[in-house]
Amino acid sequence: MRAATVRDGEIVVEEHPDPTPAHGEVLIEVRAAALNGADMMQKRGLYPAPPGWPQDIPGLDVAGVVSECGSNTSRFRPGDRVMGFVGGGGQGELLAVHERLLMPVPEALDWAQAGGFAEVFTTAYDALFTQGELKAGERLLIHGAAGGVGTAAVQLGATSGATVVASVRNTDHHDAVSELGAHEVVTPDDEQGKYDVILELVGAPNLPGNVKALNTLGRIVVIGIGAGAKAEVNLGALMGCRGRISASTLRARPFEEKAIAARHVERHVLPLVERGEITVPIAETYSLDDAPAAYERFAAGGKLGKIVLTMGEGAT
Amino acid sequence: MRAATVRDGEIVVEEHPDPTPAHGEVLIEVRAAALNGADMMQKRGLYPAPPGWPQDIPGLDVAGVVSECGSNTSRFRPGDRVMGFVGGGGQGELLAVHERLLMPVPEALDWAQAGGFAEVFTTAYDALFTQGELKAGERLLIHGAAGGVGTAAVQLGATSGATVVASVRNTDHHDAVSELGAHEVVTPDDEQGKYDVILELVGAPNLPGNVKALNTLGRIVVIGIGAGAKAEVNLGALMGCRGRISASTLRARPFEEKAIAARHVERHVLPLVERGEITVPIAETYSLDDAPAAYERFAAGGKLGKIVLTMGEGAT
Repeated sequence: MRAATVRDGEIVVEEHPDPTPAHGEVLIEVRAAALNGADMMQKRGLYPAPPGWPQDIPGLDVAGVVSECGSNTSRFRPGDRVMGFVGGGGQGELLAVHERLLMPVPEALDWAQAGGFAEVFTTAYDALFTQGELKAGERLLIHGAAGGVGTAAVQLGATSGATVVASVRNTDHHDAVSELGAHEVVTPDDEQGKYDVILELVGAPNLPGNVKALNTLGRIVVIGIGAGAKAEVNLGALMGCRGRISASTLRARPFEEKAIAARHVERHVLPLVERGEITVPIAETYSLDDAPAAYERFAAGGKLGKIVLTMGEGAT
Repeated sequence: MRAATVRDGEIVVEEHPDPTPAHGEVLIEVRAAALNGADMMQKRGLYPAPPGWPQDIPGLDVAGVVSECGSNTSRFRPGDRVMGFVGGGGQGELLAVHERLLMPVPEALDWAQAGGFAEVFTTAYDALFTQGELKAGERLLIHGAAGGVGTAAVQLGATSGATVVASVRNTDHHDAVSELGAHEVVTPDDEQGKYDVILELVGAPNLPGNVKALNTLGRIVVIGIGAGAKAEVNLGALMGCRGRISASTLRARPFEEKAIAARHVERHVLPLVERGEITVPIAETYSLDDAPAAYERFAAGGKLGKIVLTMGEGAT
């Protein structure tokens, strides 16, 4: 099979041996696989894939058709459309994945959308609800709301009854983020009021302001630190609002926790996708052969929506 | 009635009108009331009592005999021994308190111990279990373990199956803290290994080390910041261990949350007190007339165990 491959800090398309499904795994003929920030880091050698996953094929998102079921599988049959958040290797023509990491693809999603769904929605769902315990009626602030996880979080927050304030530096994206359901879109440092949950996708510079803007029993969830990691936190202010700061990543989690995260999304997000209340914004699709160009486009930034590699029927 | 009273930054013993129990309240003939750090701050005018509580009579702890039951009460009868964590006014001869903030005094506790129980054990229980979600088998580090909340936390941690490492600067107290059940007593900066829960009773200077010492899914609970409030937190490290920092106070909580905290202690701590597995270390008792001397003794520090004002039969 052919796959986008990391070679000396560059992306090339290379031949690899076809994988075969092991105990509990299904083999996927990949139709679409989005690029994510983690791929950019992995390309630079900074973020190796966890053990047990292809080490030189990037791709945390995968969507495709089941072509073969390994022993001890029961969730899918050949021909089923599946998608998932995987530890790596999504950007090849074939991938063998444990069936419990996969979800069915709702009819409402085309291949590009399915290939751009799992990483951002799993991350956003876990951050908002599992960590942040966001509830209907609460006020949610999202710093970095125009990115992949941000646009997923805007939709998840709005569809679950929270009041969503989206902080987006690039004003070109304000209308699009508003259309995704944000009740208010502001530039950073222009957010007003108090918040029950603050999703931090930018980093340390926002932390002092986040603590000040926290409601009683408020929660700050940090899952992006591109703008810096060393934050100043006023513990007196945090005590005053009885607040909480949690921080997390998904990729490093053990299998069972990733499977649980997939179950949460399957149970709580897919019905909203099926009803058309949640969408996956796509910026551009590229064929596997054009993977190097897709990486360049991603690195250039300024997009709203996923950049997705498509293959086989997914490209048609 | 007579009561320890804050007047111009000093503690004096003054006459006050006798309180009467309102709807839902019982009147307590006070037998014992410990001093706490909050009283020292209130004496200096820095920590006013919450609304609805005596404003010039300090005392967050109270223990005594029910002498009268207001309308709509059902939990206690005149003559019952009760204790509780109150919003203020514990250090007078009488106090009217809502019955749902009170707990029965186990036979194992004498009056001085009952008067020193509620504030520290409610605070420690809430921090370790409600906020920190401490479970059996986990490793617990307590910074400032020789203080009132610290000694309560050492005992609660040990009796619930955690491995307890107590950090205590004053080596004179190491043996006493060890006897309370700490599996290891160390001086600050000498704690080794990783922890699932870190109870921070000292403040900001410990935070960078706390984050480094956090186990995967570890939790830091900050409830004391005497050594400083502005902490540096490495969000990258916190993401790496998927950790959480929470901070809280009890005094500012609304009635219903204080009542819930009292129920937790009643349900989960009093049985251990009754079995003799948990004790309340008493440093010294003072009569109400000697309240000024008791405050001087508290301010001088260096003690292990509570300093308690005793009254009536509690003083005999």
